[in-house]
Amino acid sequence: MNITLAQAQKVIAAAEKKSKELDVKMDIAVVDSGANLTAFARMDGAWLGSVDIAIKKAKTARFFDMNTGEIGKLSQPGEALFNIEHSNNGLITFPGGVPLKNKSGEIIGAVGVSGSSVENDHAVANFAAESI
Amino acid sequence: MNITLAQAQKVIAAAEKKSKELDVKMDIAVVDSGANLTAFARMDGAWLGSVDIAIKKAKTARFFDMNTGEIGKLSQPGEALFNIEHSNNGLITFPGGVPLKNKSGEIIGAVGVSGSSVENDHAVANFAAESI
Amino acid sequence: MNITLAQAQKVIAAAEKKSKELDVKMDIAVVDSGANLTAFARMDGAWLGSVDIAIKKAKTARFFDMNTGEIGKLSQPGEALFNIEHSNNGLITFPGGVPLKNKSGEIIGAVGVSGSSVENDHAVANFAAESI
Amino acid sequence: MNITLAQAQKVIAAAEKKSKELDVKMDIAVVDSGANLTAFARMDGAWLGSVDIAIKKAKTARFFDMNTGEIGKLSQPGEALFNIEHSNNGLITFPGGVPLKNKSGEIIGAVGVSGSSVENDHAVANFAAESI
Repeated sequence: MNITLAQAQKVIAAAEKKSKELDVKMDIAVVDSGANLTAFARMDGAWLGSVDIAIKKAKTARFFDMNTGEIGKLSQPGEALFNIEHSNNGLITFPGGVPLKNKSGEIIGAVGVSGSSVENDHAVANFAAESI
Repeated sequence: MNITLAQAQKVIAAAEKKSKELDVKMDIAVVDSGANLTAFARMDGAWLGSVDIAIKKAKTARFFDMNTGEIGKLSQPGEALFNIEHSNNGLITFPGGVPLKNKSGEIIGAVGVSGSSVENDHAVANFAAESI
Repeated sequence: MNITLAQAQKVIAAAEKKSKELDVKMDIAVVDSGANLTAFARMDGAWLGSVDIAIKKAKTARFFDMNTGEIGKLSQPGEALFNIEHSNNGLITFPGGVPLKNKSGEIIGAVGVSGSSVENDHAVANFAAESI
Repeated sequence: MNITLAQAQKVIAAAEKKSKELDVKMDIAVVDSGANLTAFARMDGAWLGSVDIAIKKAKTARFFDMNTGEIGKLSQPGEALFNIEHSNNGLITFPGGVPLKNKSGEIIGAVGVSGSSVENDHAVANFAAESI
């Protein structure tokens, strides 16, 4: 199963809605089950550097089928996956990337959000993921 | 002046509409006046390889403020800009990238379309550019 | 639909068999429907430079859902897709990459073969593709 | 001395067998004595992000002729090889990469395994290495 563009655009609309509630400006990326970019939006005034981070968060979440922040705990100095970020042309392993599941719980892609604190990034990504 | 996300999403919606009329599946990218990705959509079933090409067409059109096909004429063997594609981490210089202008004629970004023949790619990009 | 490892290994075994018949040494790569590497084999003595070429041929065939040689005709100087090879971190557009289809004709991945003449590369890839 | 494709495929088959025993899904890469990819398999459902990690683990193990986890101890903050991961287009220095030796103890390549905990990754790689 793979995410459709209609689903991806719904995810982005949900992320925009939540971002406005939190009064933050986000870059939002959606990848499909093959980790290929499917939809993207940069809210007006959102950080330019977050374009790449949002895309890398979405890819990272699909690469390992878990929230990016979970990987970040394991990639710290002394932890099991130290410096895993050097793989796959650069991972982003702090919060803001969340897998996307269909009603049956199958992973169909992932969303990545960047532009504010990692708490806000994750809150927006999580809200968007639940909109499917 | 810079394109807004609302304008970029309108450009993408116009490109989707034209693509459906032509019965083609496109990857569509919009960059802002700084050549940074602003919005993106991959229509269901569109080529995976066109994700990168659509983004590169949009960037190329804004990098030089002209239709990508114009640059392609100059990058042929023996011509003035032979192999300019090696710059900027890879240009795409065949048709499908078109600058986006506001009502005053100022360039505010660019659109890149990839997924069919270069004639269709350009037709969709041009239609989308005129929707602003 | 996505290729399984068992199918990918069958494709590689078929490519090895055909290569031995032709008395050539090949690098053989199989990617899935998301253009991600699924299986790979370098026959003893096959060119080292063909590792990357075989992988890029497989990816290119899936990126555009056609034989790589078809793209190569269009990427020549003066043709519609001149220098498309600069996209997607490097395409290979001469023969040897072939999409893989299941019984229903759905594309489930692609195979890329490199190590001999482009005629042999294509013959081996095509034979392997038909083994599914 | 260099690993043959037959040996590499035997290593991969052993890694698959051990992975099934442990009920894990692995990406498995084998490189030769020149650190060039020789064979690869992604088990059905294994993480997409582990394709690159498995290959990098195999290369890292051969680059320095030791288990990847040994290098990871030395690449921690304050240690002798801090951030060595920046070399060679990205190393992976946590467990899962193991050199491959022939009967005489000569190194003929390396295997890299990724897809589960580092303990499982190493256990599978080690089992596979001993199958030669």
